[in-house]
Amino acid sequence: MSVYLSRQYAALKPYVPGEQPRDRKYLKLNTNESPFAPSPKAVQYAAEAAKGLNLYSDPTCLKMREALADHFGLDVSEVTVTNGSDEGLYFAFSAYCDPQRPAVFPDITYGFYPVFAERMQIPYREIPVKEDFSIDPEDYMSDSATVVIANPNALTGLLLPLDAIASIAEANPHQVVVIDEAYVDFGNDSAVSLIRRYPNLLITGTFSKSRSLAGGRLGFVAGDRELIQDIEMLRYSSNPYNVNSMTLAAGIGALEDEAYTKRNCEEIVKNREDLKQELKALGFTVTDSKANFVFASHPALPSGTLYEKLKEKGVLVRHFRLEKIKDYSRITIGTKEQMKELLTKIREILEETK
Amino acid sequence: MSVYLSRQYAALKPYVPGEQPRDRKYLKLNTNESPFAPSPKAVQYAAEAAKGLNLYSDPTCLKMREALADHFGLDVSEVTVTNGSDEGLYFAFSAYCDPQRPAVFPDITYGFYPVFAERMQIPYREIPVKEDFSIDPEDYMSDSATVVIANPNALTGLLLPLDAIASIAEANPHQVVVIDEAYVDFGNDSAVSLIRRYPNLLITGTFSKSRSLAGGRLGFVAGDRELIQDIEMLRYSSNPYNVNSMTLAAGIGALEDEAYTKRNCEEIVKNREDLKQELKALGFTVTDSKANFVFASHPALPSGTLYEKLKEKGVLVRHFRLEKIKDYSRITIGTKEQMKELLTKIREILEETK
Repeated sequence: MSVYLSRQYAALKPYVPGEQPRDRKYLKLNTNESPFAPSPKAVQYAAEAAKGLNLYSDPTCLKMREALADHFGLDVSEVTVTNGSDEGLYFAFSAYCDPQRPAVFPDITYGFYPVFAERMQIPYREIPVKEDFSIDPEDYMSDSATVVIANPNALTGLLLPLDAIASIAEANPHQVVVIDEAYVDFGNDSAVSLIRRYPNLLITGTFSKSRSLAGGRLGFVAGDRELIQDIEMLRYSSNPYNVNSMTLAAGIGALEDEAYTKRNCEEIVKNREDLKQELKALGFTVTDSKANFVFASHPALPSGTLYEKLKEKGVLVRHFRLEKIKDYSRITIGTKEQMKELLTKIREILEETK
Repeated sequence: MSVYLSRQYAALKPYVPGEQPRDRKYLKLNTNESPFAPSPKAVQYAAEAAKGLNLYSDPTCLKMREALADHFGLDVSEVTVTNGSDEGLYFAFSAYCDPQRPAVFPDITYGFYPVFAERMQIPYREIPVKEDFSIDPEDYMSDSATVVIANPNALTGLLLPLDAIASIAEANPHQVVVIDEAYVDFGNDSAVSLIRRYPNLLITGTFSKSRSLAGGRLGFVAGDRELIQDIEMLRYSSNPYNVNSMTLAAGIGALEDEAYTKRNCEEIVKNREDLKQELKALGFTVTDSKANFVFASHPALPSGTLYEKLKEKGVLVRHFRLEKIKDYSRITIGTKEQMKELLTKIREILEETK
């Protein structure tokens, strides 16, 4: 840190992304990436767009917004495009929180929310999840703070049904309710269907998971057109060309190939449910994750040990230092073969540590 | 604007990018893009990277930073990568300005600087350029505010020599001096060579102009490693995966093909000098631009008229409403053929409006 840095950041602790080691080839089950290549259409469109990179990308992202509007049955004014959904969340925290308006979110969730708040000097409250890690909608009905909920929730994969989201939006008429749907596509319904009923409901989404475009950085925000105008104003005041033209092209390709996305999501859902059963049979406690990962702990195998031993065997998973979840590992769902390999190695480790 | 938007943005006026009309095909000389396609290496690397988009991009951007470090003779800790240089400037304003530390920049410069300041509630002072639009280095030696200077300057193309940059850095030991070098590659020397002498000197650069990657959104920031640590901390607190993997690959391809960049820059410089002469011969006043554009006014042809008439004829240029420069047009340098077409049309317009 230099002597010149604004003192407002003196205590800021940046977000720590999942490790991306280069020392050897790993089976990467630590950052919730898709095991499937992007749609060939996405790849082809991106490669074509590369040839024209001397021209700026379209700052209005119009074609991509039209494709998203089509996909969700929205008007183009009800959606905008971001450099990953992290940027959408950054804009949402910027727009709807300030020193006078705090944020609330669960204590067990995406680790970036408190970083955004600290980064912007926004007061925030972390509401404890219940013993079983579930979120109690009643905890988010005070109409006194901007609500941010990942659904399914990051880390645990637990899902709030749409009527719970609706009741939270209903109970907070003077606040914006942000639903981070990074993991929604694995068998769940999107709350985008609710935005015309709730002008205070803002949905962030991503092409990183179900659409295999993590490396492309494509997110979106959907909501009432006035909310989208707010986000657009911040976008045009920060980085109007925030999404590059290859990624915009890839996103359109991905949306044109929904059959491919659907098939991949179905396989992930099947592999997730199978893995849950297998892990339970091995003595793990497993949350009922509706995302592309499982969240699991074992009474005889500390998560740090599991992490280290899997890493030695060439498999990366993620564990966390937060007291409440220190016994848990988060494991990304891969292909059937990858899950078989994972289970073989977990069985070996259970044997070795007996 | 929604009722929910934080009141701190009540008066915020977003940046307005140059128009990107879709009604017909134009000769685009309005946003300082390169007329040359990206290097075939950049295109090829990007297309290959597209196939692996299911995996996240490298948040450390290590290979790209290594390539930049090689290019500039720096250590990898002295450079980082941004989503266009706009994001680098955003980080610089965030890191080194706050309500207690104002920004200063010329009144005629890149129109985004006051937007960044307004966006972040940073007080700022716009220092008038001299009658001939040049910047007086003496105006930036008060050591009382973060200095931001585009060099060559946006809009006018006028260049401060490196010793002027050095003297500004020297005179501001308690402040960061940000030099925005978006247009440096068209025959000028980069102040990156000065960063080891001045730990308060921060340089932002872009691949949008000389390297034909405007649509890829690739910028960088170079400076003392402590300054880079500051920028990295903000990057990891905002959007750690800020640059997608296709763009990182394209950037490496572009740097591997410096001969191509050099050749293109030489042609732009030649066409710029030729265009200056031709415009002067037609009665224009032209600044001594060292960028990839000219800045010109004509006593008998208001810039609004020139803009409208050129647009009717299929050529886009840019003009500005600021009182001081309202008579001026900014015209991007294109290929030799494009400049010939431009001049033909300007001659027609001069005839028509006589």
